[in-house]
Amino acid sequence: MSDPPAVSAFVPGHITGLFTVHREEDPLRSGSRGAGISLTNGVTVEVRPATETEIRVDGSVATVDAVDRVLAGLDTVGDIRISTDLPLGAGFGLSGGMALGTALAANEVFDLARSENELIRVAHVADVEAGTGLGDVVAQARGGMPIRRAPGAPPHGELDGVPSRGRVEYLSFGELSTPDILSDRPEIITTAGTNALDHLETRPTPERFMTASRTFAAEVGLLTQELADVIDVVESSGGSASMAMLGETVFALGTDLSAAGFDPEVTAIDPTGATILE
Amino acid sequence: MSDPPAVSAFVPGHITGLFTVHREEDPLRSGSRGAGISLTNGVTVEVRPATETEIRVDGSVATVDAVDRVLAGLDTVGDIRISTDLPLGAGFGLSGGMALGTALAANEVFDLARSENELIRVAHVADVEAGTGLGDVVAQARGGMPIRRAPGAPPHGELDGVPSRGRVEYLSFGELSTPDILSDRPEIITTAGTNALDHLETRPTPERFMTASRTFAAEVGLLTQELADVIDVVESSGGSASMAMLGETVFALGTDLSAAGFDPEVTAIDPTGATILE
Repeated sequence: MSDPPAVSAFVPGHITGLFTVHREEDPLRSGSRGAGISLTNGVTVEVRPATETEIRVDGSVATVDAVDRVLAGLDTVGDIRISTDLPLGAGFGLSGGMALGTALAANEVFDLARSENELIRVAHVADVEAGTGLGDVVAQARGGMPIRRAPGAPPHGELDGVPSRGRVEYLSFGELSTPDILSDRPEIITTAGTNALDHLETRPTPERFMTASRTFAAEVGLLTQELADVIDVVESSGGSASMAMLGETVFALGTDLSAAGFDPEVTAIDPTGATILE
Repeated sequence: MSDPPAVSAFVPGHITGLFTVHREEDPLRSGSRGAGISLTNGVTVEVRPATETEIRVDGSVATVDAVDRVLAGLDTVGDIRISTDLPLGAGFGLSGGMALGTALAANEVFDLARSENELIRVAHVADVEAGTGLGDVVAQARGGMPIRRAPGAPPHGELDGVPSRGRVEYLSFGELSTPDILSDRPEIITTAGTNALDHLETRPTPERFMTASRTFAAEVGLLTQELADVIDVVESSGGSASMAMLGETVFALGTDLSAAGFDPEVTAIDPTGATILE
């Protein structure tokens, strides 16, 4: 017997540079405003029919709340094999990526005939209700350097983008717990995020995205000493770096980390957004 | 002396399968509802500084009203070199592609610091006012198989998409004049387009896109004998084909044209949308 048919989807990783927190009763309207970078590295989700759901991440059986919620939202079960070349829990929006990739691939393999916006809605709600993300899914669906002008999934959310391509560098030091931080200080985050977004929208360029992110990171007070030290060194050498929200990760555009003497991981801005793979 | 710096942008070609006509006083709100396919073949626009504007298309000096309007809208001049691997005037949205590619590349080379939505707005208005397109620009910016749920440029227009990848085949027989046809029968088009879009949105799949497009083409009465004959042969062999609106072009998904014995051009669904090139 041959294996049952499988369909794969790719979802870019997403570094959030600045954001606000908007919690509404309706999870479709909940989310965040802000800006980030979609990456050519990300999450690949392969879905095949199964009698009960099993999720594997990089080969190991795992529990991924957002993925379970997507399958429930689509009223289906499946064998879900997830792989990623980005570090987990380090601020790359991988929960949202797993949710959106599962939705896109499941739609195809089970012939669910949902539109892209419907699949984005299911994944956004799953990520919000799992407490693992507020705006990654809509950004990952778009690709590029997305600006989230209004929170929520389509048709509530409103997106724009900073025209941009090119290299991205990062250094990851470990995990931060997203839910704790978000519930801890939403007002501080939203005030700083609104100011940073205003600053970016008056001049939507990659350079301004970096300075807006850097100011945001300082104001919300989430920088660990290790991250602050790296950012200082980059700035001393004339570059610009900031923190991936929310992970213990420093990112920079171009070669700003390597030029400052670090040995970063290298990725790039993804222009495509989430897509099923042929 | 070295050449001045140049920036290039790529914009996918866009086949419209079905559409409606909405003309408003504000060109940002004018446009069309409908659905189409963005293609991996399209338009590349290279922009460099110049003291006065010159536009070349595939090497020959040309007048492209939509491009002139983009440059005026951005208050700039430039040396514009456009190339395309799709046939001109045959229903591939190349006017919109040239307008959007010029906007994206000019923004970069002249450091205009516009957001993606602002550039889409300038290109959409240029295409509408030139009379060469109503919905190509917003679809080309998104990529994939875009559904235009509401007409106009951001934030007025509303997009969704049919999840899809894969091969597209086409046969082109020549040009149709877009402005004449649009002014000739807008009500018939909008009635047929609304019905076809409703049909697609109840089941947004590639197969349904083809049947909705086929019904639309028959209802608006734009099929030439040559196009109708090709579509008949494809349908006799169990496939599905329709007409690219508005050009004398037949298109099909997968191998439906070649399987019916034709020798089509081959392209594919573009998942990326318009982007500056690195």
